[in-house]
This record gives sequence, structure tokens and C-alpha cells, in this order.
Amino acid sequence: MNRGKLFLIPSPLGEYDPAEVIPEGTLKVLRELKTFVVEEVRTARRYLSAAGLKGHIQELEFYVLNEHTCADEIRQLPALFEKGDVGLISEAGLPAVADPGAALVDLCHREGIQVIPLAGPSSLMLALMASGLNGQSFAFRGYLPAKPEERKAAIRRLEKDSAALRQTQIIIETPYRNDTLLKDLAEQLNPHTRICAAAALTTPEAFVRCQSAQQWRKDPVLIGKIPCVFLILAQ
Amino acid sequence: MNRGKLFLIPSPLGEYDPAEVIPEGTLKVLRELKTFVVEEVRTARRYLSAAGLKGHIQELEFYVLNEHTCADEIRQLPALFEKGDVGLISEAGLPAVADPGAALVDLCHREGIQVIPLAGPSSLMLALMASGLNGQSFAFRGYLPAKPEERKAAIRRLEKDSAALRQTQIIIETPYRNDTLLKDLAEQLNPHTRICAAAALTTPEAFVRCQSAQQWRKDPVLIGKIPCVFLILAQ
Repeated sequence: MNRGKLFLIPSPLGEYDPAEVIPEGTLKVLRELKTFVVEEVRTARRYLSAAGLKGHIQELEFYVLNEHTCADEIRQLPALFEKGDVGLISEAGLPAVADPGAALVDLCHREGIQVIPLAGPSSLMLALMASGLNGQSFAFRGYLPAKPEERKAAIRRLEKDSAALRQTQIIIETPYRNDTLLKDLAEQLNPHTRICAAAALTTPEAFVRCQSAQQWRKDPVLIGKIPCVFLILAQ
Repeated sequence: MNRGKLFLIPSPLGEYDPAEVIPEGTLKVLRELKTFVVEEVRTARRYLSAAGLKGHIQELEFYVLNEHTCADEIRQLPALFEKGDVGLISEAGLPAVADPGAALVDLCHREGIQVIPLAGPSSLMLALMASGLNGQSFAFRGYLPAKPEERKAAIRRLEKDSAALRQTQIIIETPYRNDTLLKDLAEQLNPHTRICAAAALTTPEAFVRCQSAQQWRKDPVLIGKIPCVFLILAQ
């Protein structure tokens, strides 16, 4: 069998020249592929064009895999590999990490299709590097509950887990709730627990601050509606 | 105050052209810096030279920050920023994630020095992308204990945590123990728990396989002594 491979292609975290954050090795593969599975076609085309693909964007084939794609449609994707290699691109950052692309990767393993991950930016890892918090042990916990009481309980649980495992806890939030979350973290956490907010990384608006809950309470900062990663480590 | 900033500079995961995995935006900053804090001077010089730095490697200043650096020496590093920007480089991949560089980042936050993380490859995230396992919830747990009984108990605990939080568990091992670890995982874990081995990513020897514990038992693979990341997800 001479089937194609699945290349996992990271994308930039903002609207800027892809070469700022995507290695030439990744861009080279991207420019040569003809078939793509993408979270959104419009963004993917724009990325390909900014990556220096010339002339033949109209000849490329795009298949959509997002939260609306049903299981039946996903099961048909492996047929694409009969024709050659396929690139998987998600909306921002690493494909198949916290996005529906993981279902295709999983399917490829089950069907014996080779999976090749390419290097690119991860907002979670950029935030972890920038925090100075424990990188020997960390967990990404996704979103906290939106309801105030559940959210407070979740914050205290995060701190308990962080203390028990000496584990940095990483969470994200819908941008319009960033400032509410930061306030909740500062108020609910132990005064000495460290909290890092890392926003808009890799863009000119990048912002990183890491200080104790006590310091955040004394000296609060408004993040605003930009992508932000929050990290906490109990002391 | 007009102090320098700390730039966090990722490095390649193997001996190849840095442009394969390091974005031009990161290489551009790397080539302009004059002062570096590095895990090992020899590797850092080689990286700078491969990154296209011309002529003035001899004029650069290198300071070592590794597991032998004492707390007193680390406390003196912020003085470097009086003279300008500083680059932090670790041995392979992201600086300050699972290496002593995190101590410098932490100190910079305490001293009000700006920290700027730059994009580059993370073996953990490449492995997570390539596994197709849950990327909405995952934890990096570092190394398991070396003693057989403790290690088996740790493996069963990982599976329990994975099931309770639907959390992908990521671990690493000293390369010469890769094959023992993979065997232990296959034997100790529930037959349906998925195990991914992702080795030598970004190099020509890259290998990724993700299958159930049962399948690993039936169809074992020898990884050998190459850098490998292991991931498990209870089903």
C-alpha cells in the first residue's frame, strides 16, 4: 500500500507574517501539499497565501473538520490518503491539541496511516515558558465552569491539586471573561499562590505578568478581550 | 529604568538545520543578542553558528545556568539586564520548561524584568498532537520511579488519574529505559487504555505509534535509545 501521510501543520497565533512563528521546515511542507483538512477554509487559504504559496490555491482541495462535522463525515476522511499526503490545519496554533482535528489523528492511527507532527507555536507552552512556574509537572485543565459558585469551587480544587502534585495548573477563558477570571483567581487563591497571566503571545501586544495572588489583589491589571492563558502554582 | 528584556529562545531537538524547526522570527532575535544564559556553552555556540550568526561569536557573553548552578550565582544574573537584552537557551526545545532556566524567569518576574517567549518546538506538544489523544485535558508528569514495584504502582495511578479526569498523561524516560517502560505500560495498563510512543520527533528517525495496551502486547516495538515521549489515555 502506498498511501499518503498526515502532516500536522501549526498556524500563527495572530494576523502577522507566518515566518515570525512558523519554521521554514514547516512552511516548505505546507507549500507542497495539495489536500488539506482544516477547521475553517477561509483562514487556511489566507495562511497558505501568506506562507508564500503562489498561483495554484484554486487547485487545492479543502475538507472541513470542525465542531459541526459529524462522525460519518470524519469516517470518510481516510479515503483522502489514497490519493496522497494530507495536511491538517487548525484555527490557531497546534492542530489536534484542544480542537476537533484529534479525531482525524486518532482515526489515522487506527487505519495505519503515518502521522507526522511539524513544529510551530503553542500558546500554552509559550505561556508556561514565560511564567517561570514548574515546567517539570503541569496540567492543562481547559475552561472553568461559568457559574460563579461552581467556578469558585473549581479554583479551590485547582489550588489543591497544584499543592498535592506541585503541578502548574494551566487554564484558558473566553476573552470577554478574562478580567472576571483573573479577579476570581486573585480573590479565591491563597495569598502566596503564584498566578501568571500571559496574553496575546507572539503579537506586538504580548503581555506576561507572574506574581502572587496577594500582589494581583493589590495591583490588579485589566487584560481586556485578547487571547490569554492563566497559570497557577501553589507555594 | 531602561533595563534589558529576557528573550526565551527555543532550540532544535536534534542535530539538523535550525530553520527546520525554529521560525525565522526567533532566529532573527537570536542573531541580534549579545548576552546569553545557557545550559551548555558548547551546544549554544554550535546553535548560534548554525543559525547563521556570522563573525562575532567571540564577542558574545555566555553565562551557564544548569543543575550545578547554585542559588547565589542565579541571584547575580539579573545584573546582566543593566547592560541590555539577554537570551535564555536550554539544551533541546523550550527553555524554562523542565530545565533550570525557570529559576531565571521566576527571578525576572520578581525583579520586574520583561519576559518575552519566542516560538519553537516542544517535544511534549509534538507528541501530544501526534497521539490524537485528548488535548483538551492533559498533564505532564515527568519521570516515573525507577524501582520496579514503585514504577508499577505509579503506572496504575496514572491510569486512575487519566480515567478520573479524562486526562492524557504524558511521561518521559531516560532513553536506555524506553523499552522497559513501554513493556511495563503495555503489561500494567487496562487492555483498552491507549498508549502512544512518539520518538525522535522532527528528525528523520521520527516514529509515532498509538494503539491500545492489548495491541502493544500483541505487537511490541523496540524504540531503542532515542528521545521518546509516552502518552496514555484511559478509555
